[in-house]
Amino acid sequence: MARVENGASKPYRALSNGDFNELLDSVEAFLFDCDGVIWKGDRLIDGVPRTLEMLRSKGKKIVFVTNNSMKSRKQYASKFRKLGLEVSEEEIFSSSFAAAMYLKLNSFPREKKVYVIGEEGILEELKLAGFTCFGGPEDSNKSIQLKSDFMVKHDENVGAVVVGIDPHINYYKLHYGTLCIRENPGCLFIATNCDAVGHMTDTQEWPGAGCMVGAICGSTQKEPVVVGKPSTFMMDFLVERFQIDTMKMCMVGDRLDTDILFGQNAGCNTLLVLSGVTTLPMLEDSLNTIHPDYYTSKVSDILNFLGD
Amino acid sequence: MARVENGASKPYRALSNGDFNELLDSVEAFLFDCDGVIWKGDRLIDGVPRTLEMLRSKGKKIVFVTNNSMKSRKQYASKFRKLGLEVSEEEIFSSSFAAAMYLKLNSFPREKKVYVIGEEGILEELKLAGFTCFGGPEDSNKSIQLKSDFMVKHDENVGAVVVGIDPHINYYKLHYGTLCIRENPGCLFIATNCDAVGHMTDTQEWPGAGCMVGAICGSTQKEPVVVGKPSTFMMDFLVERFQIDTMKMCMVGDRLDTDILFGQNAGCNTLLVLSGVTTLPMLEDSLNTIHPDYYTSKVSDILNFLGD
Repeated sequence: MARVENGASKPYRALSNGDFNELLDSVEAFLFDCDGVIWKGDRLIDGVPRTLEMLRSKGKKIVFVTNNSMKSRKQYASKFRKLGLEVSEEEIFSSSFAAAMYLKLNSFPREKKVYVIGEEGILEELKLAGFTCFGGPEDSNKSIQLKSDFMVKHDENVGAVVVGIDPHINYYKLHYGTLCIRENPGCLFIATNCDAVGHMTDTQEWPGAGCMVGAICGSTQKEPVVVGKPSTFMMDFLVERFQIDTMKMCMVGDRLDTDILFGQNAGCNTLLVLSGVTTLPMLEDSLNTIHPDYYTSKVSDILNFLGD
Repeated sequence: MARVENGASKPYRALSNGDFNELLDSVEAFLFDCDGVIWKGDRLIDGVPRTLEMLRSKGKKIVFVTNNSMKSRKQYASKFRKLGLEVSEEEIFSSSFAAAMYLKLNSFPREKKVYVIGEEGILEELKLAGFTCFGGPEDSNKSIQLKSDFMVKHDENVGAVVVGIDPHINYYKLHYGTLCIRENPGCLFIATNCDAVGHMTDTQEWPGAGCMVGAICGSTQKEPVVVGKPSTFMMDFLVERFQIDTMKMCMVGDRLDTDILFGQNAGCNTLLVLSGVTTLPMLEDSLNTIHPDYYTSKVSDILNFLGD
């Protein structure tokens, strides 16, 4: 397969038999994104179970690294099981978990509280890590009144606002988070990730955490600390946990500006799959500057290369 | 009063008797912001009626230039009347009106539609200008389901999405607007304004249009055309309408990054009032680079200068 040269950018090519066998030789851990790679919504992508089985049978470590903060690791493990895949919580790194780990590693004071714009997964991981948190689903039905006898009093002990994807976003949550960040001195603004859109269902793309994060950027005029991909926070954590050199990792994802950039920033091998948000014309667009080492249509393509 | 020197930035000072009488001599039109200048929520700021009366009695033209897109000019005129101020629609320039004028002046095709994230004021002005529009309040109770048998079909004839402040923001509206901008070729993304927060009531500051606009920036990765302050679109329109040179105008506002910048960009005199979002420490902060010609605590201060 001819190598495609792209000016000053990194060359990339369709994954070949030889490429894959080289990867199998050199890579100890395969890191998989989930939405658009393993599944779309609640539908598994073709051939995923056999592909994961094959990699495990070759002694490869499998890790799932997802920016989707809706679920906790425990909830993701349950989703994997429902889809017929046996995956342990220790193999899952979600941005909900990353948010909790960020606070832990940065010694966030236990007496402070965390306000959450997002789903249950973030609250679960924060509680598991020992933090006091509120917001999220319990604020989904709260409303405000723009009247002179109404105001929202916020908790002055909130020291961090964590923002992830929130399909139940409302003005109350945006107002509460804005009050904490603007008025509580030193209050952290943490984004699980900034994905513009994602395949939260198999029918269409939906606004991602980048939408809610953008809203809070707009009302606070502050930029968040991003803990999910492409930030290297999760990678540093993974390297520490598994003690595997990033050169011996391959990041497999469907998104250039998160998955592939994340892998590249860390020095991993990178494989783009076209089963999610990125199409071949988007990859080949002259304005695109993020190029994986290899691309292929879906993860199960690699089954075809075995034994050749 | 000593002139305050601020390094390379423009010097500014507390409005004095002499300054005001100079302004009275040279200025033909006083442009007033509303929220934080004329009123806070539904409460008039002290002394406003007498101040406006005095300026009118001196033959000055009065214009109200507001970024708040919740109301149409007609609705604003009614609000003024309720507060005991006689103001005509022709004296009011709201960002809802500016959005409609932008489409009109840019020959937006009549057969195309406009989707609105915002309040009734935007829809009213768009309809008055002859455009077909939908969204806004009628979508406030719509919801989505992240399930594989659910999807939102968007209208392919939407050629512009107008985003303003929307206290009834929800995921449906964000999804619909995102679909139009991402999937309809050439679809415009128009922001009434990008105010971070505003005094929509007198009790506290609330997230402004910057919040909803930031959300759509985050989900589309596009930047909007801004028609409200500090963009010069409204000023160009005002100059054309009233045929008054901007040097003979004085912009009076409570906000540095919209009102004062708007006035300065156009070459107007600028007067900051401290009755809204900006405090004296914020003005004097060494990181602040936007300085008005003058500042004073509230508009009625100028009544004290008369006859001296």
